[in-house]
Amino acid sequence: MKTVSSSNPLRDPRDRRLPRIAGPSGLVIFGVTGDLSRKKLMPAVYDLANRGLLPPGFSLVGFARRDWENEDFAQVVHDAVKEHARTPFREEVWQQLAEGFRFVPGEFSDDEAFQTLRATIEELDKARGTGGNFAFYLSVPPKFFPTVVQQLKKHGLSQGQGDSWRRAVIEKPFGHDLASAQELNQVVHEVFRPSDVFRIDHYLGKETVQNILALRFANTMFEPIWNRSYVDHVQITMAEDIGIGGRAGYYDGIGAARDVIQNHLLQLLALTAMEEPASFEASSLVTEKLKALRAVKLPKDLGKHTVRAQYARGWQGGEEVRGYLDEEGIDPHSKTDTYAAIKLEIDNRRWAGVPFYLRTGKRLGRRVTEIAVVFQRAPHSPFDATDTQELGQNALVIRVQPDEGVTIRFGSKVPGTSMEIRDVTMDFQYGESFTESSPEAYERLLLDVLLGEANLFPRHEEVEQSWRILDPIEDYWDKHGRPEQYTAGTWGPKAADEMLARDGRSWRRP
Amino acid sequence: MKTVSSSNPLRDPRDRRLPRIAGPSGLVIFGVTGDLSRKKLMPAVYDLANRGLLPPGFSLVGFARRDWENEDFAQVVHDAVKEHARTPFREEVWQQLAEGFRFVPGEFSDDEAFQTLRATIEELDKARGTGGNFAFYLSVPPKFFPTVVQQLKKHGLSQGQGDSWRRAVIEKPFGHDLASAQELNQVVHEVFRPSDVFRIDHYLGKETVQNILALRFANTMFEPIWNRSYVDHVQITMAEDIGIGGRAGYYDGIGAARDVIQNHLLQLLALTAMEEPASFEASSLVTEKLKALRAVKLPKDLGKHTVRAQYARGWQGGEEVRGYLDEEGIDPHSKTDTYAAIKLEIDNRRWAGVPFYLRTGKRLGRRVTEIAVVFQRAPHSPFDATDTQELGQNALVIRVQPDEGVTIRFGSKVPGTSMEIRDVTMDFQYGESFTESSPEAYERLLLDVLLGEANLFPRHEEVEQSWRILDPIEDYWDKHGRPEQYTAGTWGPKAADEMLARDGRSWRRP
Repeated sequence: MKTVSSSNPLRDPRDRRLPRIAGPSGLVIFGVTGDLSRKKLMPAVYDLANRGLLPPGFSLVGFARRDWENEDFAQVVHDAVKEHARTPFREEVWQQLAEGFRFVPGEFSDDEAFQTLRATIEELDKARGTGGNFAFYLSVPPKFFPTVVQQLKKHGLSQGQGDSWRRAVIEKPFGHDLASAQELNQVVHEVFRPSDVFRIDHYLGKETVQNILALRFANTMFEPIWNRSYVDHVQITMAEDIGIGGRAGYYDGIGAARDVIQNHLLQLLALTAMEEPASFEASSLVTEKLKALRAVKLPKDLGKHTVRAQYARGWQGGEEVRGYLDEEGIDPHSKTDTYAAIKLEIDNRRWAGVPFYLRTGKRLGRRVTEIAVVFQRAPHSPFDATDTQELGQNALVIRVQPDEGVTIRFGSKVPGTSMEIRDVTMDFQYGESFTESSPEAYERLLLDVLLGEANLFPRHEEVEQSWRILDPIEDYWDKHGRPEQYTAGTWGPKAADEMLARDGRSWRRP
Repeated sequence: MKTVSSSNPLRDPRDRRLPRIAGPSGLVIFGVTGDLSRKKLMPAVYDLANRGLLPPGFSLVGFARRDWENEDFAQVVHDAVKEHARTPFREEVWQQLAEGFRFVPGEFSDDEAFQTLRATIEELDKARGTGGNFAFYLSVPPKFFPTVVQQLKKHGLSQGQGDSWRRAVIEKPFGHDLASAQELNQVVHEVFRPSDVFRIDHYLGKETVQNILALRFANTMFEPIWNRSYVDHVQITMAEDIGIGGRAGYYDGIGAARDVIQNHLLQLLALTAMEEPASFEASSLVTEKLKALRAVKLPKDLGKHTVRAQYARGWQGGEEVRGYLDEEGIDPHSKTDTYAAIKLEIDNRRWAGVPFYLRTGKRLGRRVTEIAVVFQRAPHSPFDATDTQELGQNALVIRVQPDEGVTIRFGSKVPGTSMEIRDVTMDFQYGESFTESSPEAYERLLLDVLLGEANLFPRHEEVEQSWRILDPIEDYWDKHGRPEQYTAGTWGPKAADEMLARDGRSWRRP
């Protein structure tokens, strides 16, 4: 099997169509007993190995406060893989992978445990040829970040020797406002170079999200109309049908805007709005995304152009569900938003005057994430007004999930003897067009960490820009009353409909 | 049932969404014993009646050299309707319609027969309230046109009295070159006003053809890229899988270019290329189509940019079929083209430098008519060249028949860990999107004749412009050698592929 240098596989175009395989390396997961680790990280490691994308000596080290031996850890990974892996279980792949499993028990403050971790890494370098290349995945609450990264530094784990690399992987929340995000970034950057820090926004690992770039920049048809001359507005929606489930402790006090808009939706906005990058190197991409985010402007009257709400009791999937304030573990006086809708504008030559409406919520009509670019009506219509009364605005919709694809809505003549024109849709379905199956976002992103490819990871400047956008809204909400209520299973509060109606527009019912 | 004034239903917008129903009127068919009459016109009359679009007293008069009574004629119509009508047979509709059937036996030169016709029309005006409004459908070879129209004039049939109207309907061929077309037009216009002459190009009655206008001008997304800045070239194809069948007498000496390119394909070109009309009134439409046709320029070297050919023996649909020169009734030395491909350019601001490739042929791979607007490659691609090697040019394809709809071909990311991009398609299918069934082209066009709506009929200037384009090509072919040969069941001669290859392009395999 040919392995591709992990430094920068973009450099040699002849290698690009070969599968990109990680070089010698290992992964250390802090907080390995958590849900994310079990449901996403462990299965992703196995699936990557099964697809032949990991080096033969790849090693996985778990670190947690458990009294486990390596064998116990291997059993936990085994169960997680059996339950959650995407690809079939193959004994020989498993055997080879499992030989590289190690477990280090300990508290994050425990120096001895970090000495053991260091010894483990050195042992793996010798036994498995991991070459000193390790990624540290901090699957732990942010309050532990300072301790963990300081311990890594203190015990000489944060810098590789010679050519070898050490990388830090962190998950959202990247702070809860601009100040805390800056503090967090500072803590991490004291120990790791910015280019060695990988922030995971798993939305960016989705095929449909990466396809935004292909759609816009590999084609001729879309970019000429992708601007204020033709676009009326953009709607970015991430709707969930579930409630907060068992996440009360995490969710309350955070809310929909911080949980989803700050990261996922503002990243989708950046990819939709940005200029064409010079290349797909991470630095070119970040430059353009950052330019778009920096140009985002808040509307003056936040009371009119933002809405937050909480779900109230209602019916969903044939079942009566309780309201947010009645959920277990939620303060009955909580002001946390489970629905948030905001209007943004982008102050640049391409987008001036084109509103971007972002909304997200739990317990909505159905689970769907989409970006809808809605075009202006034609400046003039040679058709009779009564013939076009059922004609809406053209739209290009990128369906991010679950029904991945692209839809164009346009007007077509209705069969018959008059020139009546009505909206129809033209569809592209990912599943129908490709036999290749889509890798899980975490597979893609973990592999990218090992390859050192940073283009699907938001940089700290992007995180900070996103908080710059969100902070004034959260402040305003804090100071002005309580969230609206909306019935679970509906498409959100009346105020959100009114917010768009004031602009002469309406939300899509996707 | 509300009837709409036949003079100009566009004038009152409130009436537009009601079905357009013809006012009091009748139809006279010369050559009523022919194939077209039996297979298309009679069934279309019945289907219109069945859909409630004809006035209660609508009358149909057959004129032919047969010794028939009205009852014999009614039986012929009955059989034609039973065999070919699109809508179900309903006895009560049939009964009411059949009461207005009359047959006039006679030669075209027979004055007595035209006196009988006149008397018949007057009788119908009294008995059925046809109001003196009659359309004369000349379903006869062009050589009889002068006689028939002169007879109509001589016997006072070509002009209505008071508000009533008389219209002439003629079928292709509209001449076989510019001179003969001008002569033909002169003959007809000596008797009928140009606005009372309806030339039937049944392609213009097709839903998908009318939808070209809806697609272009009722939408925002397409018109901005519908020009030389974004379009690389346009391909207009009408392919038939059948041979000449029993049409040897008509076809030989005419050929593919005169039979199809001169009318159907140049009309499709005009609709694809024209500027937005001020309205859909016939005169606005004609103005724009004519402007487009007038701007058509022939390439300098006709030897390089046109190809004509004859089908040779081959296999089609699992059956061995004979070559054109072996068909019954064909001169074995015939130079008639059964395949023609030509390159045209349109010398105006919108299209300068964009080739329009037109091709048509019999015994090709399959039956299909389509307009493919093929876009330029993006001026710059930030993607790696090896990642986009399977990426073609964007295309918007209007599928005229048989699988009516619109397809967009564009590049999409292939699922997986690289940024590989490949062509996919997005589809709109008429049949899936509308429950309304499409009326037959002849239904639509006959109704338009009765309503006096001329926007789907080419004017004589368009016919003459089309011959101006074709004449030099036919002349060139006449003087330069013999047609190429192509194997029946293939996609035409090698020379046609070479013709596009010289321009760095290739024909679509639809």
